[in-house]
Amino acid sequence: MQPEDTPALRELYKGFENHHLIPLWTQLGDLMPIHPKPRAVPHLWKWSDLLPLAEKSGELVPVGRGGERRAIGLANPGLGGHAYVSPTLWAAIQYLGPRETAPEHRHSQNAFRFVVEGEGVWTVVNGDPVRMSRGDLLLTPGWCFHGHHNDTDQPMAWIDGLDIPFSQQNDVGFFEFGSDRVTDYATPRFSQGERLWCHPGLRPLSGLQDTVSSPIGAYRWEYTDRALTEQLLLEEEGQPATVEQGHAAIRYVNPTTGGDVMPTIRCEFHRLRAGCTTPTRREVGSTVFQVFEGSGAVVMDGVEHTLDIGDLFVIPSWISWSLQAETQFDLFRFSDAPIMERLNFARTHVETPDR
Amino acid sequence: MQPEDTPALRELYKGFENHHLIPLWTQLGDLMPIHPKPRAVPHLWKWSDLLPLAEKSGELVPVGRGGERRAIGLANPGLGGHAYVSPTLWAAIQYLGPRETAPEHRHSQNAFRFVVEGEGVWTVVNGDPVRMSRGDLLLTPGWCFHGHHNDTDQPMAWIDGLDIPFSQQNDVGFFEFGSDRVTDYATPRFSQGERLWCHPGLRPLSGLQDTVSSPIGAYRWEYTDRALTEQLLLEEEGQPATVEQGHAAIRYVNPTTGGDVMPTIRCEFHRLRAGCTTPTRREVGSTVFQVFEGSGAVVMDGVEHTLDIGDLFVIPSWISWSLQAETQFDLFRFSDAPIMERLNFARTHVETPDR
Amino acid sequence: MQPEDTPALRELYKGFENHHLIPLWTQLGDLMPIHPKPRAVPHLWKWSDLLPLAEKSGELVPVGRGGERRAIGLANPGLGGHAYVSPTLWAAIQYLGPRETAPEHRHSQNAFRFVVEGEGVWTVVNGDPVRMSRGDLLLTPGWCFHGHHNDTDQPMAWIDGLDIPFSQQNDVGFFEFGSDRVTDYATPRFSQGERLWCHPGLRPLSGLQDTVSSPIGAYRWEYTDRALTEQLLLEEEGQPATVEQGHAAIRYVNPTTGGDVMPTIRCEFHRLRAGCTTPTRREVGSTVFQVFEGSGAVVMDGVEHTLDIGDLFVIPSWISWSLQAETQFDLFRFSDAPIMERLNFARTHVETPDR
Amino acid sequence: MQPEDTPALRELYKGFENHHLIPLWTQLGDLMPIHPKPRAVPHLWKWSDLLPLAEKSGELVPVGRGGERRAIGLANPGLGGHAYVSPTLWAAIQYLGPRETAPEHRHSQNAFRFVVEGEGVWTVVNGDPVRMSRGDLLLTPGWCFHGHHNDTDQPMAWIDGLDIPFSQQNDVGFFEFGSDRVTDYATPRFSQGERLWCHPGLRPLSGLQDTVSSPIGAYRWEYTDRALTEQLLLEEEGQPATVEQGHAAIRYVNPTTGGDVMPTIRCEFHRLRAGCTTPTRREVGSTVFQVFEGSGAVVMDGVEHTLDIGDLFVIPSWISWSLQAETQFDLFRFSDAPIMERLNFARTHVETPDR
Repeated sequence: MQPEDTPALRELYKGFENHHLIPLWTQLGDLMPIHPKPRAVPHLWKWSDLLPLAEKSGELVPVGRGGERRAIGLANPGLGGHAYVSPTLWAAIQYLGPRETAPEHRHSQNAFRFVVEGEGVWTVVNGDPVRMSRGDLLLTPGWCFHGHHNDTDQPMAWIDGLDIPFSQQNDVGFFEFGSDRVTDYATPRFSQGERLWCHPGLRPLSGLQDTVSSPIGAYRWEYTDRALTEQLLLEEEGQPATVEQGHAAIRYVNPTTGGDVMPTIRCEFHRLRAGCTTPTRREVGSTVFQVFEGSGAVVMDGVEHTLDIGDLFVIPSWISWSLQAETQFDLFRFSDAPIMERLNFARTHVETPDR
Repeated sequence: MQPEDTPALRELYKGFENHHLIPLWTQLGDLMPIHPKPRAVPHLWKWSDLLPLAEKSGELVPVGRGGERRAIGLANPGLGGHAYVSPTLWAAIQYLGPRETAPEHRHSQNAFRFVVEGEGVWTVVNGDPVRMSRGDLLLTPGWCFHGHHNDTDQPMAWIDGLDIPFSQQNDVGFFEFGSDRVTDYATPRFSQGERLWCHPGLRPLSGLQDTVSSPIGAYRWEYTDRALTEQLLLEEEGQPATVEQGHAAIRYVNPTTGGDVMPTIRCEFHRLRAGCTTPTRREVGSTVFQVFEGSGAVVMDGVEHTLDIGDLFVIPSWISWSLQAETQFDLFRFSDAPIMERLNFARTHVETPDR
Repeated sequence: MQPEDTPALRELYKGFENHHLIPLWTQLGDLMPIHPKPRAVPHLWKWSDLLPLAEKSGELVPVGRGGERRAIGLANPGLGGHAYVSPTLWAAIQYLGPRETAPEHRHSQNAFRFVVEGEGVWTVVNGDPVRMSRGDLLLTPGWCFHGHHNDTDQPMAWIDGLDIPFSQQNDVGFFEFGSDRVTDYATPRFSQGERLWCHPGLRPLSGLQDTVSSPIGAYRWEYTDRALTEQLLLEEEGQPATVEQGHAAIRYVNPTTGGDVMPTIRCEFHRLRAGCTTPTRREVGSTVFQVFEGSGAVVMDGVEHTLDIGDLFVIPSWISWSLQAETQFDLFRFSDAPIMERLNFARTHVETPDR
Repeated sequence: MQPEDTPALRELYKGFENHHLIPLWTQLGDLMPIHPKPRAVPHLWKWSDLLPLAEKSGELVPVGRGGERRAIGLANPGLGGHAYVSPTLWAAIQYLGPRETAPEHRHSQNAFRFVVEGEGVWTVVNGDPVRMSRGDLLLTPGWCFHGHHNDTDQPMAWIDGLDIPFSQQNDVGFFEFGSDRVTDYATPRFSQGERLWCHPGLRPLSGLQDTVSSPIGAYRWEYTDRALTEQLLLEEEGQPATVEQGHAAIRYVNPTTGGDVMPTIRCEFHRLRAGCTTPTRREVGSTVFQVFEGSGAVVMDGVEHTLDIGDLFVIPSWISWSLQAETQFDLFRFSDAPIMERLNFARTHVETPDR
């Protein structure tokens, strides 16, 4: 479909180059593919690889002002050496040694932490100390000051999720240093945000203004577990409660709106009954899962990967995927779905199984 | 300001009458007052009067198809013999004897129940049995089938709130009879709606569609009490948590939106520290309070009324009011504020105290 | 279904009366009918009756401070002598003699004017003089100052529509006097609001904040006529453009939101081809039509009424109606539909014709 | 701030590499800069360079299935040889020779065209032929079929704007071929969309469902010019109408919502009085201007560029800029602001001039 290669055409193309121009007709397939053809690839990181490297970093790399965090980012093999798990998302394992402090700062990028094991660290968000324990989701929405400190004699590791690649690609990020130490070393069981907001269906009259991101700093495992347990029980009782047969799931939401916890990142938790397999799906946008409990597998783009606790995998846009539960299988999930939905790019395709 | 009374004017006015016309200039002050001049008056109903009358009704009046409910409506003395507590709201004490059933029906009118004392009744809303216990708020949004049954050998009384006057004035109501018995006599501790939705900040993936009214059928006292307790504790710790000094309050909300539980009725719960007096307020729209615990007083339009547990009072539109707490003082509140806000008529005036 | 009349029951009922209580079981059918049973009745006011009475008022009744407006309200025969065309709406004919001024005031009530004939009056809304000409819809949203003056030697009459009954019933109205004369006697062809906002699909950067009511003060006949003409032409060309075969219609909207012009009142204009009959409908909420051009009939609750230019008729809630066009038939319409929709009471039933 | 380079550290870093991991502490400044540091640079493309190259392409490059469009994309010199004018936006000059047809297709990417000179082409959007004339903005929102044909014996050039870079970076795009010829070669003066929707403040009753993108296919120069003219006249009359002194501006909007025309692209038109200079601004997100009429200059990042008709320039995120009008100065503008606002990344800084 390309024009004949003539001296005149070469001169034209030279003119394009000289004037910082590129013709569409030589690029169309790349620029506008028939369906999303991500450079990012499906990939699995084993917790058994990640944790020892994080521990070793704890020995060799100090944490403090400048480097800011002892965080090791998952670099999608398809994305050319950038610390991007997908074009929009950052995922990392962060590690804090005994009694260490990661200094306070804030940035436009939205962040959360999820704890697959351990406890003992408090993250201090806009002055509110938030305990981090196993199974908890902790939020630090854009432009909130935050630092962490480990109140124990044991190290702790967890995962961080942010919209760093999106922010960097689109030039939206600001960053500001805060206190070198966290502003409050108290270690309360519950943060102020939780004490105000974690009462189901109740909203404080002092908080009637809707907020862009959730005012809840910590979503506790106890509640997540109970919600999923109830869904499976209701399913057994014949009530509509699960998203699919054998598949319970919750979305973490902003209680002021019922919508996603942050403007760019969706967080969910999924539980499959032993033996359950989810239908094969494709979705616009990228998503990351971390196994929290149990064992099973994921099939991505036709390739099966066995999964154990702590394992992280990324599913790029429009790559087919299905989960398989060997035991009861618990997975934390985050994605860029709010971006896709707010900009009207969301699409899902679910394969109907042959019979 | 009126035109001179002449034969010609009388003939004109006769012409108006013949053609179903009324001039504005004879009516302006009534039709468009300088500020709201409600016909409804501030009024207090004592629980010590209400409960014996409800009990007596239990003896004399059967409950069943046709009459539907053994409910006794509060009739505002200013509203000419209608069972309207205000121009928009209905409030009633309802009474169900041992083992009785109030049959199922549904209607456009939005309804709730609040329990100031007792337990043992289940309300079955669209087939979901909901326990009614002390301090609970129970919802039956418009067009949900609902009936009640008393599972015990003790009678039970509670209050109902609806938008019946609004519906009747504006001709919006439909009504349909359902089953003569409730569809499910089970007495579970928690309803399906609670089991799916009462996990703070968590939304089931099977319930991602927003709903006009809350999917939570029961807002339990345990959560309300804890939320208020935390607000007062946070206030003591110097955190912003209460709506005013010494005044904790929550609004019951629809978790799919963060907004009011139903399109026409707002429900709240207020707790004042002993000794606290709220600033004198005027608000567009009418509101009803019921004392839940403690003792105190309300000043409405300059008149003080002493308050005990169960007492109900109505504050019509733009009537000044202030609450005074003798002991720690708990009050349930409902109002037509969603109507006022959605139609842009809401206004509040708070008096600044003299110094 | 009522309890047996015994001395004990009478004593109970006496107790209710003494304590301002009314039982539900004696009132249910009235309070909660099977479907809306409006007290308001369908009614037609002939322009040939209205205009002479307005002219006579022009002779006998001065216009000025106190009476404020020479407006004659349509009083629904079912509403007991109130100047309410329906439970929510006010409709009136207003008359201003040569060179007269109606003084400025403002009120919470939302208002519009529609001009079925004549010209020469300017309404000054928050200081912006707005020409009133045949076929124009003019808005004065709640709490905007407004006055009118007749710049000619001819009288002029038009209709006013407001939410006065709704405001009065629900005690939401405030009123404030303004200047005794209008603040600006200029007679520009186009108001500032039109000059800023009446460019299709274009929004001034100085007006990016959404407003509760439309910033357009005048919706000109020229545009309405053209929009309806195009719909009928598109229909002839086989394009989907009309609401029903032979029935073109536009809704006047707030350009900042695409929604209704004011929070409580919907305004529309309908054009039927000669010979067109609309399906029989019932709707929750009340509506008023005024014939603008052509002749035809309306069937309300099974009764046919012949219609001529200027005639006004009201259709109360859930009353069946159908329009019939003898000639091409133009009608202005207003209703309380925004109230019904915002509070989730809207319902429509369209009869399918027998075949 | 980096850890000491030791064999152990090198081994750790080797481990990172082997497992597709990258530490944050070596990347922080790049990943999370203090403020946006775009790789894209401010750049100006002269119309006097672009048009001859487009004309030459008309001679040498056929238009048809496969290449799809004779469009030449502006390639930001900072973006490494991609045809991206900014990280989010595509801008191109498109050229269609006499009697040529560009075949129909559709894609997820949102597109518009703006005509700086010429006429004679119709773009057929979902079957609706839309005339393209000087000063018009034409929309083809995501997933609408569209093709173009030149009905004259003269060539025509215009600019295209799309969200191609955003779509490609984030893997959201789908593409589908349509008819090889346009489906309708009619050349009506006005499209169906205009005839239904371009009546200010009026909405067809057949179009009450809100749409994600504007239903208006063509925003005509006549209306844009009139809106800007009125703003400057109102300013002269002392009314608030312009966005800044001497600076009139409109935003093209979706009439069903009052919001942006498409979910990812904002379109505006700006007119400066001769001699006017705008305050120096920085904004998050990138924007492109094209000069439509008059002459002047832009200062970007402190560098002044002289501007003539047709010239295009891009301002990357957070780069300072100010416009200067020599004559009355008209500029079309488009940007990714809807992305920034919907995802809560929008920020603006306006420099206050020294005095």
